[in-house]
Amino acid sequence: MNAVWLKNLGLSYRKDVPIPTPGIDDALIKVHLAGICSTDLELLRGYYPYEGIPGHEFVGEVIEIQSNDLISRSWIGKRVVGEINIACGKCKTCLRGNPTHCENRSVLGIMNHNGAFAEYVTLPIINLHEVPASVTDEVAVFTEPLAAALEIQDQIHIRPTDYVLVIGAGRLGQLIAQTLALTGCELQVVARHSHQRKILTDRAILVITENEIPHNIADIVVEATGSPDGFSLALQAVRPKGTIILKSTYKGDVQLNLSSIVVNEISFIGSRCGPFFPALNLLDTHKVDPDALIQNRYPFRECVKAFEIAATPGTLKVLLYPD
Amino acid sequence: MNAVWLKNLGLSYRKDVPIPTPGIDDALIKVHLAGICSTDLELLRGYYPYEGIPGHEFVGEVIEIQSNDLISRSWIGKRVVGEINIACGKCKTCLRGNPTHCENRSVLGIMNHNGAFAEYVTLPIINLHEVPASVTDEVAVFTEPLAAALEIQDQIHIRPTDYVLVIGAGRLGQLIAQTLALTGCELQVVARHSHQRKILTDRAILVITENEIPHNIADIVVEATGSPDGFSLALQAVRPKGTIILKSTYKGDVQLNLSSIVVNEISFIGSRCGPFFPALNLLDTHKVDPDALIQNRYPFRECVKAFEIAATPGTLKVLLYPD
Repeated sequence: MNAVWLKNLGLSYRKDVPIPTPGIDDALIKVHLAGICSTDLELLRGYYPYEGIPGHEFVGEVIEIQSNDLISRSWIGKRVVGEINIACGKCKTCLRGNPTHCENRSVLGIMNHNGAFAEYVTLPIINLHEVPASVTDEVAVFTEPLAAALEIQDQIHIRPTDYVLVIGAGRLGQLIAQTLALTGCELQVVARHSHQRKILTDRAILVITENEIPHNIADIVVEATGSPDGFSLALQAVRPKGTIILKSTYKGDVQLNLSSIVVNEISFIGSRCGPFFPALNLLDTHKVDPDALIQNRYPFRECVKAFEIAATPGTLKVLLYPD
Repeated sequence: MNAVWLKNLGLSYRKDVPIPTPGIDDALIKVHLAGICSTDLELLRGYYPYEGIPGHEFVGEVIEIQSNDLISRSWIGKRVVGEINIACGKCKTCLRGNPTHCENRSVLGIMNHNGAFAEYVTLPIINLHEVPASVTDEVAVFTEPLAAALEIQDQIHIRPTDYVLVIGAGRLGQLIAQTLALTGCELQVVARHSHQRKILTDRAILVITENEIPHNIADIVVEATGSPDGFSLALQAVRPKGTIILKSTYKGDVQLNLSSIVVNEISFIGSRCGPFFPALNLLDTHKVDPDALIQNRYPFRECVKAFEIAATPGTLKVLLYPD
């Protein structure tokens, strides 16, 4: 099959990749389209060692199920999105109810499991979610990042009286802003690029510049810039006893004065994958609309160019299609 | 009056310090005794620029009240401890109900307000708490650090099913351990020194060594070592989605890989001053017993030696008495 291949921090288009064989209780899925995420770009920069097919935001159709169970087989023909963490279901973390943190997990297109920038991908049936008929492929492909945005609201209670600042209005920041707007909180978003600003203001979301970031008054700050710079801006904005949600993953460390965190009693919360079902629901009911975020579409064979465009500062969603 | 004086990172004993004049609605307190805290040692190391009388853990007797109000004047003669943050009561942070984070605060013996290593100290009446008759001076002097230990339980919910690891069994770590033991959680404390270990095991609190710190399984880790080393141990111990409470303040930064915080969805919570009333209550009911923590007693004139002893690794509480 055709697929995008990542090796030694380089990307290539390959036509000779074998179609993956689903394991027991796995689905084989024909990929309709997939999205490039900042994590894919970071993998290419060496954030995490990975060789294989990248890509974890996808929508596709189940074409084979490795099970004789009738309920399992009823997935065949369904249009699906899929949770990206493939969990063992048996370790302490899984048994505690946190399969996204499974100690033995593989992660679609990120760790030990070939991803979705390919004609076919496999996933356990348990990871699948059926896409409602009203949700188009180009909307459904946003389910995974939208779920990641919603993780914030699974982690902390956001009150209508909270002043919430989102730093970064890229691919993920836009979805975070749209979901936070639903809480009725006092929301501002720091956006660098004019097209990012326009998408937000079109939805009546207030936009500020980096220079307008206030000092020590935000109840909650979401750091979604994808770069270490965002972190110090978040520290500047947060109030004493406030909370900083960390959404960015990137290679490298930051310097941190922990004493100021103690004195000001700041909370930091790392935030990663979130719940798919509410995400699909928000797309189905049009409470979140990712359409404006789609910036480019490329076939797999133009993956190198697609990644270059996606890595250009300010670029929103770049979609990849099977050839 | 006699007092300990901190200037240019040096400590001296002075006999010529004027007795402080209480402002409106302030109390003048005759200090019975005071305790040396790690923050005092850090001030001497330059953690925060301060010139004046250090000391914020004290017990004393109100001898003058700057008010004609009868209720206010009824404090005269009472034995008291006092909250250390002197708040304006008018700023946004005070009005939100967080006076310990007042934007205009001074802090007893730490910031713009002379402290308790002196014969007399002033504090606003609103900061005072009467010491129950059953609580001796040498127990009451632990109210402030015990309140700081209790702040943890004001910040997060600790379940009896949580495995909680306290790293550091010094002055503050011991009080934290005693208060956490009250929650019924599965508690372990990392202690370096044999006398620290003995105090804990005498209370049936489980003790481990640094080498026995587990990997990725603690629901909650309290970092109370007072040094940057404790932080990486805390990161080692905490489980995915777990919480690290930061209790140490010290000069200097740490290097931190924020991406691992995001991937593992770790929470960090800075934790400083806590509630005095429940602390006094625990002392009154003997649910917490700080007696075993008292290691040395010195008069103010031996302050340099007292600070040296207090700064020796493993030393627990050193008390200072007016001459």
